[in-house]
Amino acid sequence: MNKKISLSGIQPSGRPHIGNYFGMMKQLISHQEEFDVYALIVDYHAMKSVRNPAEMKENIINVVLDYLALGLDSKKVTFFKQSDVSEHTELCWIFDTITTMPYLMRAHAFKDAQAKNKEIDVGTFNYPVLMAADILLYNPDIIPVGADQKQHVEISRNIAEKFNNTFGETFKLPEAMIMKEMAVIPGTDGRKMSKSYNNTIPLFAEYEEIKKCVMSIVTDSGGGIPQNVFAIHKLFRNENELKKIYEEKAGKYKELKEMLIEDLEKFIAPLRERRKEFAKDIPKALAVLREGGEKAKKVASKKMDEIREKIGVKVY
Amino acid sequence: MNKKISLSGIQPSGRPHIGNYFGMMKQLISHQEEFDVYALIVDYHAMKSVRNPAEMKENIINVVLDYLALGLDSKKVTFFKQSDVSEHTELCWIFDTITTMPYLMRAHAFKDAQAKNKEIDVGTFNYPVLMAADILLYNPDIIPVGADQKQHVEISRNIAEKFNNTFGETFKLPEAMIMKEMAVIPGTDGRKMSKSYNNTIPLFAEYEEIKKCVMSIVTDSGGGIPQNVFAIHKLFRNENELKKIYEEKAGKYKELKEMLIEDLEKFIAPLRERRKEFAKDIPKALAVLREGGEKAKKVASKKMDEIREKIGVKVY
Repeated sequence: MNKKISLSGIQPSGRPHIGNYFGMMKQLISHQEEFDVYALIVDYHAMKSVRNPAEMKENIINVVLDYLALGLDSKKVTFFKQSDVSEHTELCWIFDTITTMPYLMRAHAFKDAQAKNKEIDVGTFNYPVLMAADILLYNPDIIPVGADQKQHVEISRNIAEKFNNTFGETFKLPEAMIMKEMAVIPGTDGRKMSKSYNNTIPLFAEYEEIKKCVMSIVTDSGGGIPQNVFAIHKLFRNENELKKIYEEKAGKYKELKEMLIEDLEKFIAPLRERRKEFAKDIPKALAVLREGGEKAKKVASKKMDEIREKIGVKVY
Repeated sequence: MNKKISLSGIQPSGRPHIGNYFGMMKQLISHQEEFDVYALIVDYHAMKSVRNPAEMKENIINVVLDYLALGLDSKKVTFFKQSDVSEHTELCWIFDTITTMPYLMRAHAFKDAQAKNKEIDVGTFNYPVLMAADILLYNPDIIPVGADQKQHVEISRNIAEKFNNTFGETFKLPEAMIMKEMAVIPGTDGRKMSKSYNNTIPLFAEYEEIKKCVMSIVTDSGGGIPQNVFAIHKLFRNENELKKIYEEKAGKYKELKEMLIEDLEKFIAPLRERRKEFAKDIPKALAVLREGGEKAKKVASKKMDEIREKIGVKVY
């Protein structure tokens, strides 16, 4: 029996932290065993915020190294970037012509962006339509997303239905798979781990960096269990076991932090070393992305051929 | 010395009338002697209004037959359709990310459409951006347009400048060439000739159809010079000579109309016959479009390669 198809977009947005890992990266890697996975680096989406070509290029290369280090298997995952498959933007335009302005203006991301800045770009507005194209070109069964991304899958379904109703059955409606494990991962200050809060522990951190991050974890002066340390620590150990240890060593902040440092190092070191191996031959690493692009292009261009036929522009 | 490059978009919107001919088609054909012409059938723009695949396909085929009948020389004109060159929609997306919502909302076409219908589609809104991509991919020097289209060339220039300022010199700013001869061609009721007024004389009309159209030209009962007949007639004869004839035959509406019928037939018959010849072998006619698409694709993909390098997504 064929595996179900799962599709995920990956933002090329710089150095990942352990919040990103437990939020989404881990799921993507584990899904490669169960699903036929499409994982696309959404560089054309990222253009909304990255306008420096050197930074864009570096971000793309880094994402490739990150995922290869985490064990992405290019035999199981079609790993590619949006800008290698022109069908994404082509289908985005086709969808633009059947999507109304008022409908798209109700999207959360647009409303949020507009609330912050009136001068937002058309790409930010049109973004859910490109995402619908990203998804629908590959007929996926499921789209693993955080709860905040559910609306985008809903928009893709609506656009697919609109197209099917207008031009005949063409797209399968994908299902959102809300990732429960995408619970909020706390940062070193107890708030959600996020680059914008400057409270992250980088996923591929060096030992000294891990030490520095953990030592900076905010603890109260009460002398009990340091909750912020515990909240991160439980990601790497059985929670019940860990609780016992923390209760025994209540108040011994330094000792508990040192334990966390060692557990983090044990987890991160092999990933970090794998990443360094891949970084030694970047053209080889990028060849994986290029081949993924060729694989995706075949699927996408076959689908576009069907779409062109349906809308009537295929005359030869 | 190289010829200057001229670029024109052609709407695949059904049967042309003599108003279309004197408005734009004639210029396009005459430009092939003077310029290096790109003429693109904008089928992806047309999707905003045509949602019937059979109609879309027919419209595309008809436009090809029309222009071949008028003497378009595929050695002098790169004649192609938008949907054969995916770089158009790809560059449209890239431009979307550097174009602000308030800027694009000031475009006339959007404001006009919005005034008529609140539920307009995103394609109608995004249309000037796709047009900018249509133009800028080919580095044209001039864009022949009617006065009402001048703003679109202005938008293309603004987007080109924004891109150049953000990512470095990439696009040449095209100049609008306002077509003076694009004067309003009157229809059979004296208003502007337009399908929506049902007052047209089809460019490739059969003799009987010409007769019917001319006989339906509205004349006053005053018995003087029939102005509506004259206004059309002067497109086919020297105006001063014609004036003398009309003054001599003032009041003789039937006779003047018969003269116009003969002049129209003399003009239309050879075009109509040429068109019939091309229509005998549609695959052969379409091969011209296909080859044009291949030629355009080469130019566009070379330009896109440069653009990808500039924005940083070219990593191999």
